[in-house]
Parts: sequence; structure tokens; C-alpha cells
Amino acid sequence: MGEITNNVRAQVLVDALPYIQKYNNKIVVVKYGGNAMTNESLKQAVMNDIVLLSLVGVKVVLVHGGGPEINDMLKRLNIESKFIGGLRYTDAETVEVVKMVLAGKVNKDLVNLLGRSHGKALGLCGTDGGMLTAERKEGPNGEDLGFVGDIVKVNEKPILDALDCGYIPVIATVATDEFGQTYNINADTAAARIAAQLRAENLILMTDIAGLLRDKDDPSTLIPFVHVSEVPFFKRKGVISGGMIPKIDCCVEAVRRGVKKTAIIDGRVPHSILIETLSNEGIGTQFR
Amino acid sequence: MGEITNNVRAQVLVDALPYIQKYNNKIVVVKYGGNAMTNESLKQAVMNDIVLLSLVGVKVVLVHGGGPEINDMLKRLNIESKFIGGLRYTDAETVEVVKMVLAGKVNKDLVNLLGRSHGKALGLCGTDGGMLTAERKEGPNGEDLGFVGDIVKVNEKPILDALDCGYIPVIATVATDEFGQTYNINADTAAARIAAQLRAENLILMTDIAGLLRDKDDPSTLIPFVHVSEVPFFKRKGVISGGMIPKIDCCVEAVRRGVKKTAIIDGRVPHSILIETLSNEGIGTQFR
Amino acid sequence: MGEITNNVRAQVLVDALPYIQKYNNKIVVVKYGGNAMTNESLKQAVMNDIVLLSLVGVKVVLVHGGGPEINDMLKRLNIESKFIGGLRYTDAETVEVVKMVLAGKVNKDLVNLLGRSHGKALGLCGTDGGMLTAERKEGPNGEDLGFVGDIVKVNEKPILDALDCGYIPVIATVATDEFGQTYNINADTAAARIAAQLRAENLILMTDIAGLLRDKDDPSTLIPFVHVSEVPFFKRKGVISGGMIPKIDCCVEAVRRGVKKTAIIDGRVPHSILIETLSNEGIGTQFR
Amino acid sequence: MGEITNNVRAQVLVDALPYIQKYNNKIVVVKYGGNAMTNESLKQAVMNDIVLLSLVGVKVVLVHGGGPEINDMLKRLNIESKFIGGLRYTDAETVEVVKMVLAGKVNKDLVNLLGRSHGKALGLCGTDGGMLTAERKEGPNGEDLGFVGDIVKVNEKPILDALDCGYIPVIATVATDEFGQTYNINADTAAARIAAQLRAENLILMTDIAGLLRDKDDPSTLIPFVHVSEVPFFKRKGVISGGMIPKIDCCVEAVRRGVKKTAIIDGRVPHSILIETLSNEGIGTQFR
Amino acid sequence: MGEITNNVRAQVLVDALPYIQKYNNKIVVVKYGGNAMTNESLKQAVMNDIVLLSLVGVKVVLVHGGGPEINDMLKRLNIESKFIGGLRYTDAETVEVVKMVLAGKVNKDLVNLLGRSHGKALGLCGTDGGMLTAERKEGPNGEDLGFVGDIVKVNEKPILDALDCGYIPVIATVATDEFGQTYNINADTAAARIAAQLRAENLILMTDIAGLLRDKDDPSTLIPFVHVSEVPFFKRKGVISGGMIPKIDCCVEAVRRGVKKTAIIDGRVPHSILIETLSNEGIGTQFR
Amino acid sequence: MGEITNNVRAQVLVDALPYIQKYNNKIVVVKYGGNAMTNESLKQAVMNDIVLLSLVGVKVVLVHGGGPEINDMLKRLNIESKFIGGLRYTDAETVEVVKMVLAGKVNKDLVNLLGRSHGKALGLCGTDGGMLTAERKEGPNGEDLGFVGDIVKVNEKPILDALDCGYIPVIATVATDEFGQTYNINADTAAARIAAQLRAENLILMTDIAGLLRDKDDPSTLIPFVHVSEVPFFKRKGVISGGMIPKIDCCVEAVRRGVKKTAIIDGRVPHSILIETLSNEGIGTQFR
Repeated sequence: MGEITNNVRAQVLVDALPYIQKYNNKIVVVKYGGNAMTNESLKQAVMNDIVLLSLVGVKVVLVHGGGPEINDMLKRLNIESKFIGGLRYTDAETVEVVKMVLAGKVNKDLVNLLGRSHGKALGLCGTDGGMLTAERKEGPNGEDLGFVGDIVKVNEKPILDALDCGYIPVIATVATDEFGQTYNINADTAAARIAAQLRAENLILMTDIAGLLRDKDDPSTLIPFVHVSEVPFFKRKGVISGGMIPKIDCCVEAVRRGVKKTAIIDGRVPHSILIETLSNEGIGTQFR
Repeated sequence: MGEITNNVRAQVLVDALPYIQKYNNKIVVVKYGGNAMTNESLKQAVMNDIVLLSLVGVKVVLVHGGGPEINDMLKRLNIESKFIGGLRYTDAETVEVVKMVLAGKVNKDLVNLLGRSHGKALGLCGTDGGMLTAERKEGPNGEDLGFVGDIVKVNEKPILDALDCGYIPVIATVATDEFGQTYNINADTAAARIAAQLRAENLILMTDIAGLLRDKDDPSTLIPFVHVSEVPFFKRKGVISGGMIPKIDCCVEAVRRGVKKTAIIDGRVPHSILIETLSNEGIGTQFR
Repeated sequence: MGEITNNVRAQVLVDALPYIQKYNNKIVVVKYGGNAMTNESLKQAVMNDIVLLSLVGVKVVLVHGGGPEINDMLKRLNIESKFIGGLRYTDAETVEVVKMVLAGKVNKDLVNLLGRSHGKALGLCGTDGGMLTAERKEGPNGEDLGFVGDIVKVNEKPILDALDCGYIPVIATVATDEFGQTYNINADTAAARIAAQLRAENLILMTDIAGLLRDKDDPSTLIPFVHVSEVPFFKRKGVISGGMIPKIDCCVEAVRRGVKKTAIIDGRVPHSILIETLSNEGIGTQFR
Repeated sequence: MGEITNNVRAQVLVDALPYIQKYNNKIVVVKYGGNAMTNESLKQAVMNDIVLLSLVGVKVVLVHGGGPEINDMLKRLNIESKFIGGLRYTDAETVEVVKMVLAGKVNKDLVNLLGRSHGKALGLCGTDGGMLTAERKEGPNGEDLGFVGDIVKVNEKPILDALDCGYIPVIATVATDEFGQTYNINADTAAARIAAQLRAENLILMTDIAGLLRDKDDPSTLIPFVHVSEVPFFKRKGVISGGMIPKIDCCVEAVRRGVKKTAIIDGRVPHSILIETLSNEGIGTQFR
Repeated sequence: MGEITNNVRAQVLVDALPYIQKYNNKIVVVKYGGNAMTNESLKQAVMNDIVLLSLVGVKVVLVHGGGPEINDMLKRLNIESKFIGGLRYTDAETVEVVKMVLAGKVNKDLVNLLGRSHGKALGLCGTDGGMLTAERKEGPNGEDLGFVGDIVKVNEKPILDALDCGYIPVIATVATDEFGQTYNINADTAAARIAAQLRAENLILMTDIAGLLRDKDDPSTLIPFVHVSEVPFFKRKGVISGGMIPKIDCCVEAVRRGVKKTAIIDGRVPHSILIETLSNEGIGTQFR
Repeated sequence: MGEITNNVRAQVLVDALPYIQKYNNKIVVVKYGGNAMTNESLKQAVMNDIVLLSLVGVKVVLVHGGGPEINDMLKRLNIESKFIGGLRYTDAETVEVVKMVLAGKVNKDLVNLLGRSHGKALGLCGTDGGMLTAERKEGPNGEDLGFVGDIVKVNEKPILDALDCGYIPVIATVATDEFGQTYNINADTAAARIAAQLRAENLILMTDIAGLLRDKDDPSTLIPFVHVSEVPFFKRKGVISGGMIPKIDCCVEAVRRGVKKTAIIDGRVPHSILIETLSNEGIGTQFR
């Protein structure tokens, strides 16, 4: 792409102006995780994009999961997952591994990559500054899932302190209850709760799908905008199904709690977060 | 250019990242004037560019002249220019017209255009807040030139106050002496002195030439970088001559007084200020 | 008056104490204009008074018109006024001259005079910082008056920013609409709207009449205090008539919108503004 | 003086402008004491003057003595003064009475009077906030004078804290040593040391004499200005003698330590402090 | 007690932790006075305790009386107390002595003692900064009691200013009315009103009794906790009687006005204030 | 120890006063690690002590190692340590485990324990905010030790930001170089460098030995104070030997770089950190 002309360069920057104005000093929560995180050079590119957003005045909060790295470590440690009623059970040993991998490896690696793009980041988990308080969560039929938690309280102060001091907060979604017990928290849910508590302008879930498709095998059937009131309809029609259900429920929940806009975008598309934020090009699906 | 792809959009933004980082919270003084200011749609585009720079964290100070509009008004008022030793003499009546046109028309029109691009600007002249103190300037052979002034003191406080309150200061280069007499100040010189006093990162002179050319009739002979120590050589060779001499003297003066970089760029090229500031593309001539 | 004794000096200062206490850190909007502005030495004296007020802790906002200077310039430019239904029509050319003269000449001259009295002033117009938003105003019978505007929104931020940074804001009453079109605004009306928006303690209209007289030919019939509820009565009686009607309507409007006190005073009386503000002597007419 | 015209009122205020500008936000230390303090209505007038000064932006620090009230209380308590080598000896009982009268009566009465003039004052003594540290002072021939002290350290923080919070600090000149022993401190000396530590613009000693007279019986021989280098000459000539010597030594000391101007003025003249501060009229003697 | 082991030292500090956390940055008003103030070494110990509390983050406000020292001074000055209807009458001479002794002696002595424990204190009375406004108080049967006052307004600003600047405010309970007349105020009442106005966490009345005893001659019958609703019952039973009535009425009043907790503790017990504040040991009687 | 009397409680608190005053608002860096960290209830007690210190105004920075937990994890992952020239080699896989265990497990566990004692802590590592920059460290004979690093730069800003926002910073000593490579840093060395950069008042190394013993088998030969100039002597004598050498070198280095006091104390003694900080009891060895 060395042949981009000055004209084009200038035009792109100028086109970005209204979006930069719109997000100036606003909080945008980005959930990054899963398979979108497995490619190292893509990961560096995403961190680069986040530094760019933060430099043009967006207050980015990065929330991450880390499924593949957790599974990898559990396997290396020969910890086998128990399943209860088809649901994975998180025992005491597992939750400690989850915490260690998320807060000590995935989190700090992201901080490191942000630093290499000359961003200033602070890697925190839900325990830091009493940020996330959890309680035990049951399975849909009351199953004991072990140390899987629901967030019962978000203390936004450590996040705002980090933003006010000029850092990009990077948050690993483990939390503690009042007795100091650690819980694993679903990262999408955590991002939605955090975005709501921060009254964020935007919540972006970076995934490894193109967005909501009318026909999941045909990318050309992408639905660019969904009003939250349409979600039940799409569920009944089966358009929203499987793993998309909890993700979209997070979007709906965030919108209902006051987040202005949420979007599910394809983290595998290079710079999808910039396109979503700084252009009027459709990428992924927006929920309002 | 509707066919710019998302890939290209993202790439341009990413390419801008190091430049945005470099200028973050730094002061850039832009001198805008002369014929580069005559095209209305170009003028709005330049103001748009300045709002963009200010949104990505650059503290832009806009200094302007207004030759054509001044001449136009003098003609309408039937004020004829006297010439003494070949130099234009500014009498009391003329300097009042200069002040009125610069501070009341050109200045407020720029503020207005910045506002239309959703920028917050404050239009000031050298008299406001005691910003620029002038004294009478003589011609090269001691000629009395009337109310043409040299800046003897720059009070940067009103400019910094405006920046701190989030405004883009727009400065008309008229100044007053200790008795309240108004003087007309060359806008290039004023911009250089203001940039020096503000310890600006960059001084950009927007002109209507391509930059310094080895052969002034051949744009392909543009000299992209000049070290200030080379200037006397280029003058002897005649590469720097005529109207370029005072402009380049301003650049040299600004660099000597601590401005990190100055550049003469072609204001007629669309978005030349963005290309100069946010890309590594050569446009115009830089002096260091 | 060299023979003022120390006793008298001290007594005057002491008498001023309760008034200084009353206005300490309060905003006082002074409208200055018209014929009260034609005498140069009187003008300097008024600016001196304003610096004094600002030094004893009053936050003075100076709003000015500039009728005579505008007419003078229109005449020099051979721009003739059209009249529609007996009302002056402001065409595009005229409004540009108004803007230029008000914001570039009258405004900056006042800033200059304040500076000579060692005051720190900032000359702004309604376009600066998006201060005044206007819309087209019709004549009483729906006549098109051209670019004469009504204020639809006052953004007080640039005024408060200037006050907070220690400047005396001097405001030329031109404004722009959402499309960037400039309008001429009646200065009395603008002062009243600005005073209301700033929740000013006091609005002082400096005019070239003694105040409201029962018999307009007999200065001894000055009415020192008028309650706004009495205004309709005085209008019916013809005591308020002609050019006084819009001025007094401004006073009533300002009081209704929360300004504590408004006064119409005689700007030709030396230091009338000090007498009005810092003594219990009656000068002009107060409206509450 | 009811017949002061508006003209005169305005002129006096205008004449005060340069002085108000000069002292704006500057610290002026006023020593008030002795016989100048005995007349109650004069005392209220002086406090009124101080509130006026503080309202026009002068940071006034009021230091006071209280000789007559101390003597009165000592007499009522039948405490007789011992004299050693002609000097008054301050025993433990006496110094407690001094502290009580100065800090509990004279000080709080002044605070009360300032409050009645709508001033906000804080009554402190040298012990408060560790403001004044003293050590035992000997007589000129090494006599033990009891608990008479010299200031060895001024901690300006409590004074600046009071000024910053908007109070007029009123200071009783008792001090403590490192063991908590109380000492009586000469109020002139204390005022000079405090003024020096605060880098005051002005130190004013209010006394009950007209100033320095060439012939002490002829008020027309007042010397309005004395350069500190002239003081030894005036001492040799006997012009400075008796009780004037320590007072003028304080002035010299304060000037030497960096106070810009000191003055000895006649506290019995109504509003002498206003005339000294806000006019160019000579009253008393200035030392520079 | 040199044999306190490190184990014990550490345990005590650790035990204090929850109390330090509870009072961190909270305001505690301590009333100190009467006979609890007569022993010099005890007084220094109490001041030491207060400095300790202030260092561990408690914002202590010290309110004091001074009965014995006032009586002593009145006796030395041969001022006899008049009694009207069995109540002591405070005439003009007496109230001046009260003010002088409280604000000039007792107050400054406490400031001095706090300073010796390396605390930073500021000695104020109700007149300073217009803190306490009083009005004449009548006896229960409408008797004229002279200059005995009730507090009608507490201006908390000088107290908060002192706390914010890092000082321990020490308050002598004399107050003035709108005419500047001084009144003597009961110190318990004043402390309660001040605590209520400051929304204090705790009001501690240091007395010379053990607390509320069921049998006033048997210390083992101490009642450690009283709910304010029980007070009428205890009054009827005679458990609360005599001098305890006004003290406990102050406690009730403070609790009713929003103070979280009040306590009457025995000032004669060494470090009773530390035990009350930093331990869970019962000492004295708490009212909630 | 339930039998601690109120007298003793009070005495201990009072004895702590001068130490609390000394450390008020001063930074104390505590290195906690190794075997002193293996006992869970001791660990909670140490965290409790740190919360106490922070509540009494000490700005505690907690730096930790985590040897045993790292070894445990390496063993579980079947990662064998290579030895080169007798020195342990840290390969790429190992350094990732070190980072994960230190920053994700040990660090967050300490944050969690501090939270349970109602402290507000923020768990950071050297990568966060670009705090610690490392470079490769060689063995004494130039051996390649893999990813073992020396600190080349401490950026104190994230630590001060955390302190200013009221958090206890907890720091895991992994660092990155300019290419983003992670290094393991010796925690004692890191604590010394951090303490020096923060100009800490005190550096406390909590170990599992009693301090420096003349006879390492006889605890009664503890040397309570060592001047840094004595260290070479003690090394020659063999008093300082083995594992003590690097620890004491850290102390010497910290003192040389401006830390006022360093101490090696026995972390196994309950509350040793309180005894060291808040009493005059000797515990461990101080270096000055």
C-alpha cells in the first residue's frame, strides 16, 4: 500500500474528523479476546489501534479474556475439566490458574504490546482497588459451577483514576467476593457491566465472526444495525443462536444500562476497531 | 475518492500514529495568509485541518495576515499608498484600516470557519491582553515607514490562557506601543516571534509557492530539507532570493530562538498542513 | 480639584466601602455605546473607571455598540442604506462592514484604552468561542430587515473563561447563525441577554441622556427608581417613549431574567459609572 | 462633609487607581498600637480602613501591641513592675498577663471590630501554628530582663494560610521558645520581622506622632522621605532620638531585609492609613 | 511500663487498626474542660493524645471551657458574682474577663501544649472569622442573666479552613452578636452545636466523672451505652440528675442533629480519649 | 493477650507518636518475599500491618518476590533449570512462568489480602506504565544467564500516581527491555532501586533471618546498627557472607543513592514491620 497518495491520506484524516470530535474525551470499552487474540501480529496491530484511539482523545478501557491460553495452561498442568450437566465446573485449582494466566500473562502481555506502540497502560484485575465484587453464579438449572462468578458491584474508581492519570486501563476479568475468594468472570459480561458503570459512549466486542448474519454461512447477509427491541424477534427466528446469544445479551444489557452504542465487530479484520470508530463504514453489527 | 477502501483508511490512520504521538500536547504555530487565503473552499478546508490537528492533541496557534483584503479595502476607501525610497509608507489612516480589516474581518472570518468545523476558536490581535508590544521600524536605509512596527515583546499569557481553556487562538498581527499607537506587523515575523516565545515544536508558514526550489521554474527541484547553516550559501547562490528572503529569515530566526522545526509549505495544495504534520511525505521545505 | 483635602479623600474611599463589599466578585455588565462614546477623553476616562471597578473586585463585562463609526465607514464606502417600511435594511455588504468596524476597530480601540489604564482586556465578538448564536429577526410587521438578528443562545463559557483568567471581556455584538452567517445585533439587547445568562448583579446602560425624565425637557424631573411593574404605566403616560422604549424594555427583560438591578445612566457625566456603582448618589434611573 | 460632590467622589476614586494597581495582591503589614489605639471610634475607623484595603485587593496583615491595656490590667492585679538598670523586668506572672491581655482581649477586640466592618479576620498570636519562635533577650548591658524575647524564627505559613483562605490575620506579638515558655515581644520589632519574612510590599507603623520632625516641636518640619543610609546622620544630629530610635531601627531593618517601603504615620489622623496607601499625599515619614 | 513486650506493642497497634480505619478523615469534636483540665501533666498527656489522633488521620476539633481559671481571675480582680434568682449574672466587666482568660490564656496554653507535642494548632474563639453568632439567653424563668448567650448560628468555614490547612482548631467558646457584643457560651453546648454543624462522626465530652452511674457512688454501676430515647426514663429515675442533666442534654441534642456518636468520658483517666477512640474497651458512657 | 490493660494500650499508642510523626507522608519501601511469605496467616498479618502503616500516614510501597511459588510452578510444568557455571539460567519459557506467577498469582494474592484488611491496593509489575526498564545481566564471569535482567531505569510516575490516588502499590519485579522482552529481576535489587528513585525515607527488607549476626548460629549476637562504611570490614571478617552479601549490598546501594535508612528484619517475627517502624525497639539490623 506504499502507493497511497497524499490526497488519499489527507482525505482519510479529514473523513475521520467528525468521529474524532464525537468520541473526544468519551469512554469506549473494548472487549478483546478469544480467537481474535491468537495471532501475534494482529494482536500488536490491535494494540496499535488502541493507542491511536487514545491519542486522538478517546478514553479507551481494554477488557480482555484469554480462553485459549487458559486451556493451554490447564492442559500443561494436567488439570482436567469436570462437566456438570454439560457445563464446565471451575474448581479451586482451576480458578487459581485462570487468575494467574489472565492477570499475569495475557494482561501483562497486552500492557507490554501497548507500551511497544508507545502507549501508557496499566494492567489491572478485578481485585485491584476493589474494582469488581463477585458472587457465586449457578448454572441455568441451579448447577454448582464452582468458582464461576457474577459481578454484583463495579467500583469504577480505579478505572477512572487510571484514565485521569493518562493510562489505558487493561482489565483481566477475575473478581473476588467479600471473603477474598477469587472467581472467573465471563469477559463479555464484565465488559458490559464495566461499560454501564462508566456510562461509556461505546462498547465494542471484538470477536472472530463478521457480525450478526441472517444466514450464518453467507457473509453478505450481515445485519449492520439492530435495535435492542428487535433482539427477541431475531432469537425466535434463530438468527441469533448458539454462542451469539450471550454476546448479544451483553450488548442489550449494556444499552439498557445507558451505554449509547454497542457493536460486535470482527477482530480478525485488520484495524476493524479503527474502521468501526473513525469511519462511517459498516463493519460488524451495531446494537442501540 | 469514494472508493477508498477500509484497508487504506486504516493504514493511513495507523501511519499517522507516530506523528500524532510526536505532536501530542505540543504547540504548533501556523502562519496562514496571502494568496493561500483567497480561495474560500480552500480556506474552509484549511480550517477543517486545523480543527483536526487540535482534536488529535496538537495545540495549534493560528497567525494570519491579510494582504489582499487590506489592499481591497484601501482601494475602496480611495487611500493611496505613498512610497518612500521604494518602500510602502503606512500612514495613520492606513494603519487603522489595516487593524480593522485584519482584526475585524479576516480574523473573525477565520474564527467563524473554525466554528463551522466545530472548532472552538478565539480571535485576538496583538493588543488583546497586551500580547504584542511594538516599536517603530525603519526601512533598511533609515527611511521613515510610518506605522510599521517591529515586535519588541511577546506576552504569551493570553495565548496560553486561550489554549488552556481549550480554544484555538487566532491572531491578527497588529500591535501597540507603550503609548497605545497601533502598528502593522509583518505576519511571518510575528509568527516566528510568537513561536519562539511559546517554545513551539513547529512553525509552519503556509504560502503560495511549492517551497524552496533550486530552479524556481522547475517544481521538481524542490529542496526538502535545509539546515539553517546552509541558508547563507543558498542566498549567495541566488536560490534564496526576492520575497523568499524575509520568509526564510523568519524560519532561521525561529529555529535559532528554539523552535524545533519550521517549514514553508504550499497552502494551495489541499490538506498540505495535514500531510506536513501527520505523514512522512515531503511537502515543501523544512528548516532545522 | 487639586484642593481636595486628605479628609475628603479618605471620606470618599470609606463611603465606597459598602458598595465595594456589595459588588465584590459579582458580575456587572456595562453597555457602552452611541454618542456617549464619541468624546475621546471621556472614553479614556470611562475605561479608567472600568479598570478601577475591576481592581476593586468587580467582574466587569463591557458590551459595546458603535453606531457613529459604522455610519461613518458606510458613508466612506458609499454604501447607502435601504429602508423598508421605514426600517433600515442591513444587506450582506453592510453587515460585513458592521462586523469589521465593531470587532476590528471599536472593540480593539476599547481594549487598547483599557490597556493604557493598565487593565488587561480581551476583545471578543459573538462569533468567538461560539458565544452568541443569532437568527434572522423580522420587523414589527414581518418586514425583511436583512442580516439583523435576534440572539437565540448565549454561551457564557468564553466570557467566564476570560473573567477567570483575569481579563475584562470586551464584546462586540455581532453574532452568527448555525450556517456561519453574520448578523448585526442591537447592543442593548445583547447586553441584557448576556447579563441574564451570566446572572449578573447589575446591568448598566450608559447612554447620552440623563435617565428617565417625567418632563423630557426638564432634568430636574429625573425619576431615580422605577419598579418594572410601573413600566407599562409610564409607557401609557408617554413618559417612556421613542428611543427610550427599547432601552427600557431591555432593562425590564434583564430584571425578569434574574439580573438584580439595571440602570440607565448618563455616560456624558464624568465617572458616572463610578458614582452609580460606588456611591449612594442618584445618577440616572434604576430599574428593579 | 455631606457636601462632597459627585465630581469630587469620582476624582478621588480615580486618583486612587494607580495605588490600588500597585498594591493589588501585595502584602502590607500594618503595626497598630500604643496610644493610637486608645480612642474607640478611631479604632473602629482604622479597622474600617483595613477592610477597605483588603477589599481593593491588598493583603493586609495586622500586627498589634497593647501597652495601655496591659498596664491597666497589671495595675488592677496589683502586679508591680520591677526595674533593673532602668529597664522593666518581665517576670513569669507578668508575661502571663501580657499574653492574656494581648491575645485574649486586644486581639479579639480588633477581630470583632473588623467583623463589624464586614471584614473576615482571624486572631492569632505567635504561638498559633508555631508562627513566632523566641529566645530570651538581654538588656543592652547584659541585664536579665525576664521573659522579654527576641524573635529567632518566623514561620510564615499560618499567616499565608489565613491570607489564602481570605482572612485578615491579626497578630498578637507573644511568642514561645522551644520549651513552650512564653515571651513578650516588642510589636514594632515583630512587625518588621514578619514583614521581612513575608517579603511585604509595605510596612506601616501607626504611631501617635506626626512622623520624623527636624524640630520635634514644629510639625511643619516633617521629613517626608528618608533613605536608610541617612539614618546614622539623623541619629548623630539628634533628629532621631529617644523613643524614635527603636521604631526607626525597625524600619531600617525591614528595608534591609527586603521590604520595599516602610512608613511611620500618625495613627491619630483619621484614615491616615488610606491616605498613606491610596494617595500621593505625604503623611508621616517614609523609609526606603 | 518499660516491660511492655514487642508482642504486646504490635498487638495493640493492630487492634487499633479498625478504629483508625473508621475515623480516617472523619471529624471528632472533643470538649475538654473543667476539673479535667487542672492537672498540668494530665493536660499535656491529653494534648499528646490529640496530636496522635490527628496524625492517624482523625480531624480533631478541640473545644474548651475554663471555669477554674476564670473564677481565679475574677477573684484576683475582686469582681464579685451577682446572683439573680439563684443564677449567676454575667455583667459587662465579667464577660470581658471571661473572654480574656478563655481566648488569651486557656486557649493559647492548649495551643502551646499541642505545639510541644509537635502538633500544629490554631487557637480561635467564636469571634474569629465570624464563627459563632450568639444572642442573649434568659434564665429558665425569664431572668436576665447578663451576657450569657445562646448560639444562633455556627459558621463552620473557619474551622474547616483550619482543618484543610492541616491545623488542629482549638476553640474558646465566647461568641458575639450582630452588634459586636461578646457573650459567654457554655462550652458543652457550643461543642454540641459545632459537632452538629460539622456533621462530626463523634463528640467526646471529657469530664471529671466516670460516666453515667446507676448509683453515683458506685463506679461499678457504669452504664456503658444509652440510647437517646432512654434519656427521659433515666431522668425520671433520677439516674441523670444535677450537673449531668445539661451535659447529657448536649449529647442528645448532638445525636439528634446528626452526630453519629457522643460519649461522656473521664478525663482524669490517663489517655481515656485514646481508649475511647482507638479500642473497643468501654470507658465512660456512649449515647447514640 | 486479652489481658492487655487500657493503660498499656494507651502507652503503646503514645509511644508510637514520635514514629508516626517521623514517617508522616514519607515513602517506605517494603520488600517482602521468600520464605517469610510462605505462612498464610503470617502473610495476612503482614498485610494488616501494611494497611495500618498506610492509615497512619506512611506511604508504603510493597515490592515482592516469590521464589517458592515460582519453583513450585516450574516443577508442576516439568521445566527443569539449566545451570551454567553453577548459575541458574532463565530461558524464554521460564521467564514467562516467572512473570505469570509473580504478576498474576503472588501479586494479586497480596492485593487481595490487603483488600481483606480494608486496604486499597493496586497490583503492578515493572511493565505497567513503563515502570522498570531492564537490560540483560551477565554472570560474574560473563556467563549468559538468559532473561535475568538489571534495572537500567526506574520510572517512578506509575508508583507516585498510585500513591497520590490513595492506593498501596504492590510491585512484582519483572521488567521489560526496549524491545518488549521480559526479564526476571532480583526483588531485593529492584526494591533498592525503586526506593532510591522515590527518595524513600526507609527501605525494609523482610527476610527469614534475625538480621546480621556476629555468630550466625547465635541470635544473641545480633548487630543492631551498621554504618555502610563498616560493610567491607564485616565482609572481610566473614560476618557478612553467603546469601547475606547481595542483600546487604542492596542496603548499601540504597543508602548511597539517598534512602535515609534501610533495615533487614525478620519477617517471621509477628508484626516485625510495626516494631521496626513504630517503636524504638531493635529488631533486625539497620544500615545507614
